[in-house]
Amino acid sequence: MKDRYEIAVVHGDGIGPEICRPALGLVDAALRQDGLMHWSEYPAGAEHFQATGDGFPEATRKACAAADAILHGAAGIPGVVHPDGTEVGLDFTLVNRFTLDLYANIRPIRLYEGVACPLAGVKAGEIDYIVVRENSEGLYAARGAGSLLRGEMAVDPLVQTRKGIERIVRKAFELAQQSKGAPSDGVRRVTCCDKANVLRSYAFFRQVFDEVALDYPDIETEYAIIDAMTMHLVLRPSHYNVIVTENMFGDIISDLAAATIGGLGLAPSAEVGVSNGLFQPSHGSAPDIAGKGVANPYGMVLSAAEMLDWLGHGNGDDRLLAAAGRIRTAAAEGLAEGHMTPDLKGKLSTGEVMDILVGKVAGMA
Amino acid sequence: MKDRYEIAVVHGDGIGPEICRPALGLVDAALRQDGLMHWSEYPAGAEHFQATGDGFPEATRKACAAADAILHGAAGIPGVVHPDGTEVGLDFTLVNRFTLDLYANIRPIRLYEGVACPLAGVKAGEIDYIVVRENSEGLYAARGAGSLLRGEMAVDPLVQTRKGIERIVRKAFELAQQSKGAPSDGVRRVTCCDKANVLRSYAFFRQVFDEVALDYPDIETEYAIIDAMTMHLVLRPSHYNVIVTENMFGDIISDLAAATIGGLGLAPSAEVGVSNGLFQPSHGSAPDIAGKGVANPYGMVLSAAEMLDWLGHGNGDDRLLAAAGRIRTAAAEGLAEGHMTPDLKGKLSTGEVMDILVGKVAGMA
Ligand SMILES: CC(C)[C@H](C(=O)O)[C@@H](O)C(=O)O
Ligand SMILES: CC(C)[C@H](C(=O)O)[C@@H](O)C(=O)O
Repeated sequence: MKDRYEIAVVHGDGIGPEICRPALGLVDAALRQDGLMHWSEYPAGAEHFQATGDGFPEATRKACAAADAILHGAAGIPGVVHPDGTEVGLDFTLVNRFTLDLYANIRPIRLYEGVACPLAGVKAGEIDYIVVRENSEGLYAARGAGSLLRGEMAVDPLVQTRKGIERIVRKAFELAQQSKGAPSDGVRRVTCCDKANVLRSYAFFRQVFDEVALDYPDIETEYAIIDAMTMHLVLRPSHYNVIVTENMFGDIISDLAAATIGGLGLAPSAEVGVSNGLFQPSHGSAPDIAGKGVANPYGMVLSAAEMLDWLGHGNGDDRLLAAAGRIRTAAAEGLAEGHMTPDLKGKLSTGEVMDILVGKVAGMA
Repeated sequence: MKDRYEIAVVHGDGIGPEICRPALGLVDAALRQDGLMHWSEYPAGAEHFQATGDGFPEATRKACAAADAILHGAAGIPGVVHPDGTEVGLDFTLVNRFTLDLYANIRPIRLYEGVACPLAGVKAGEIDYIVVRENSEGLYAARGAGSLLRGEMAVDPLVQTRKGIERIVRKAFELAQQSKGAPSDGVRRVTCCDKANVLRSYAFFRQVFDEVALDYPDIETEYAIIDAMTMHLVLRPSHYNVIVTENMFGDIISDLAAATIGGLGLAPSAEVGVSNGLFQPSHGSAPDIAGKGVANPYGMVLSAAEMLDWLGHGNGDDRLLAAAGRIRTAAAEGLAEGHMTPDLKGKLSTGEVMDILVGKVAGMA
């Protein structure tokens, strides 16, 4: 428990500031205490790159490394790219992941009451699982390391290590132990998603998964090949409890999963290591709607709740856990009551939704 | 136009023989001519490996290379693996892909009348696009080449070449030119699906895509990052016409796409090179239902139609094109009339469905 938590806040590009700024007020309201979170804002992103030539300033890096947690809005402007064609706006997230060793990307997928499910006949409560994405290696480790030969061929290495697999699989089993199990049958289950039938490194992932699983005999285990996994998430999402997978596969299935619960606008994300954590919604900077005040704030708000949970557990601070609970309850109520932005077929602005949520957390026990 | 076409037939494992054998009779009936297709059966697969220690005999390889086309049922038994953990049953498909340079994997995705769509509110005709999967390189090129170091790390190289990208992108544009366009707006459109924002080799894929696109000014182009692509296929499938992508990504999104049209049981696949073609349904060997006579034959039947089309176009043989048309019409009618196996909530056996389809093609003009 600390007297105050240092939070590095980076609003980022596009709709980033529109959703991130009001989230700070919501957290303060949920904590019933200004100053317990000490918010310090730092610049990063594609817009900052355009203005200054630097997309991720040294001062921001240092602040992120030193903070108790990092809260981020969204980043990226299409077309603002490095010479190798990759995006400048993503540096903030990707560099933090690797330099701070944020090895676990935890993406809760939950269909809320009030949200239209794009899957026929699926009801609120029937989708409730967690995608645990390895966040420190896999295909993403190739970023910046890929090579192009004579303009004739390009190579990116896909690297998976025993250490990397072991710790992410362990995290997945721990989350399953803390969970209520899959919606369909209440069974606590970890699904290993890979491509072990074709590729060496994914077969290795599965092998290490099997070894780690021996330490968790109370949890059911199963495998799913990545291609079949995408089908299952559409055809029987209620079967899943915790899914663990390599970095790139996690990137892919967490977006697909978000689509099944109403879109990325509702999907939070927690990226944590041993002593650092980065919290940001799963969506991007949506430049097409930036500045219009219609950005969906729920993914951001739920990411802030993830931050409070992680800090609360890590520091044994019940005040933070209580605040996280208030924010989640407010979000669930807000959605159930139809307080939504246009992307969810609602009529409210970002600010109107946020005012309602602040009112709710303030009025709670 | 030939007097006779040599077809190498490999039934494979599990449900393979149950769907592949009757497909031959359907093709003969659709052609109104026995012997125009000269069917020669060869063994391969995990069961053959279990019996003989050889999953893909030399004689079968040679026959595949020499044939006008290869027709395959399905292969694989879980757990029958090579020392590196990859599956024996997949050798047939994977080795053929690489040795015969079957660089284009063409997967038509179409929602048929009569089939329940798992996506809310989506109707027959609203999903009709083609996934064009690069089939000769990308992450799959690593198969058998991945390495494991001291049991501590595993590496698979992801390789993409200008030649490989160029020819698959060209194939995608040609298919778009021959198409009716996307269901939503009739626009002929090729979507380049990649991860250019993060990885060098995918940025290279996009760069070559842009170069090739200049030769097809009549076709609209767009990009989709793989993670967003999976969302789009769930949230706005009718937008798509032709999607072109790297090998692994194509594997993933073609399965997801199949889920949106009623499952892999309905999804055909054509894998073609310059002078060889392999035709097989997208699904696996489904060992759990093998021998029960309930395997869904539509994916196999539609794959046989793909074979006739490809041979017909390649050899200027209208008889084959007509037969392909008859089979597709019969399949569409069969589904619309509810002649289905249990996986599609029907009550018929594989044999009963096939008898109906044979009756239909025999009765057609
Ligand atoms: C922003 C981008 C680098 C990122 C990724 O590809 O990992 C995003 O898609 C995500 O899922 O977090
Ligand atoms: C059978 C297997 C090798 C194959 C693949 O992974 O390519 C299958 O999933 C497919 O999509 O054709």
